[in-house]
Amino acid sequence: MSAQQAKRRIGILISGRGSNMVSLIEATRSGQLDAEVALVLSDVAEAPGLQKAQELGVEARAIVPQRFRTKLTGDDAQRYVDALKEAGVELVCLAGFMRVVKDPLLGAFPSRILNIHPSLLPSFPGLHAQEQAWSYGVKQSGCTVHFVDDTLDGGAIILQRVVPVLDEDTAESLSARILAEEHRLYPVAVGLILSGRYKVAGRRVAAFA
Amino acid sequence: MSAQQAKRRIGILISGRGSNMVSLIEATRSGQLDAEVALVLSDVAEAPGLQKAQELGVEARAIVPQRFRTKLTGDDAQRYVDALKEAGVELVCLAGFMRVVKDPLLGAFPSRILNIHPSLLPSFPGLHAQEQAWSYGVKQSGCTVHFVDDTLDGGAIILQRVVPVLDEDTAESLSARILAEEHRLYPVAVGLILSGRYKVAGRRVAAFA
Repeated sequence: MSAQQAKRRIGILISGRGSNMVSLIEATRSGQLDAEVALVLSDVAEAPGLQKAQELGVEARAIVPQRFRTKLTGDDAQRYVDALKEAGVELVCLAGFMRVVKDPLLGAFPSRILNIHPSLLPSFPGLHAQEQAWSYGVKQSGCTVHFVDDTLDGGAIILQRVVPVLDEDTAESLSARILAEEHRLYPVAVGLILSGRYKVAGRRVAAFA
Repeated sequence: MSAQQAKRRIGILISGRGSNMVSLIEATRSGQLDAEVALVLSDVAEAPGLQKAQELGVEARAIVPQRFRTKLTGDDAQRYVDALKEAGVELVCLAGFMRVVKDPLLGAFPSRILNIHPSLLPSFPGLHAQEQAWSYGVKQSGCTVHFVDDTLDGGAIILQRVVPVLDEDTAESLSARILAEEHRLYPVAVGLILSGRYKVAGRRVAAFA
């Protein structure tokens, strides 16, 4: 091994613009995250985030599933596994990836797939979480980084940050404020998991003191 | 009418120690709330909060329902209505009242029954919310004041405050920190509702600007 150790390699899965992807790439460039984004994959060929990743010098391509529209299973999932493993990825970050991840991808990266969700889970899982929260009339919302398991947004929570809902908010203004907080939170959570300095007891994830 | 206008009259329903009851009584005494607690009722004869209320000079008594253990309906609820109306109560605050309130009590005080719940609803409704939140592994919890309707902790939210869950928390230490926040929040929410300076659109409760 050379004196300069190889960086930890992250893979990111997107379906759209990939703004959390950009935030993670920037965190690796600034040194906040001692890691590199080795590969970006999208299930949507025309996802704007693919071009953005390439502009940022990150390998990025679409792997468009043949079956199903809302989940990633079987041979389709295996193509993701192969690409990620070939790229030397050890940690997979979902960033607006609009499919429920199942085996064999889940099993290939046990406790090494993370997601960020725009609500304080377990409130408002699923699609349009910010709109759900706004319509429900909560006064506090936020975002959650969690391990991905075979439930919908139900995996163990790594970190959460609060975003207050203002009386004058629209669903759009709330979404924008939550998104800004997502961009700050995701790199912190990824750094914690890469550091290994945490323990899991039941569903509780705690950083080492 | 005399120059000194009669104070707005609040009723409080408890089942136990009534610590939020004490907080509301103190808020009326300190002047934070321009109102008085006219009556405290308990569905449990030996609720420690009854004696505490009396020590604080507030009329307090038990009305023990004949039927059901977890809800308040029919003739039982009517006895509550009669007592509250006789005391001139216009706003009813549940404070650890361990029954689901139904008609005729609900109908007698339309949008004038409030509850405080020790979680960020809609996460963790029902019993032992703090323990639920701790076990689930959320990083942010808190408390909610909401209008009472015929759902379990599902009425429109008036105010919420956040209490972070610390890695070193136990369910007990979390509960204690949430309770301290409840004591601060409930008088603020009651003041807002008494002021009338809010509007409700769908489920969204917003203070006037």
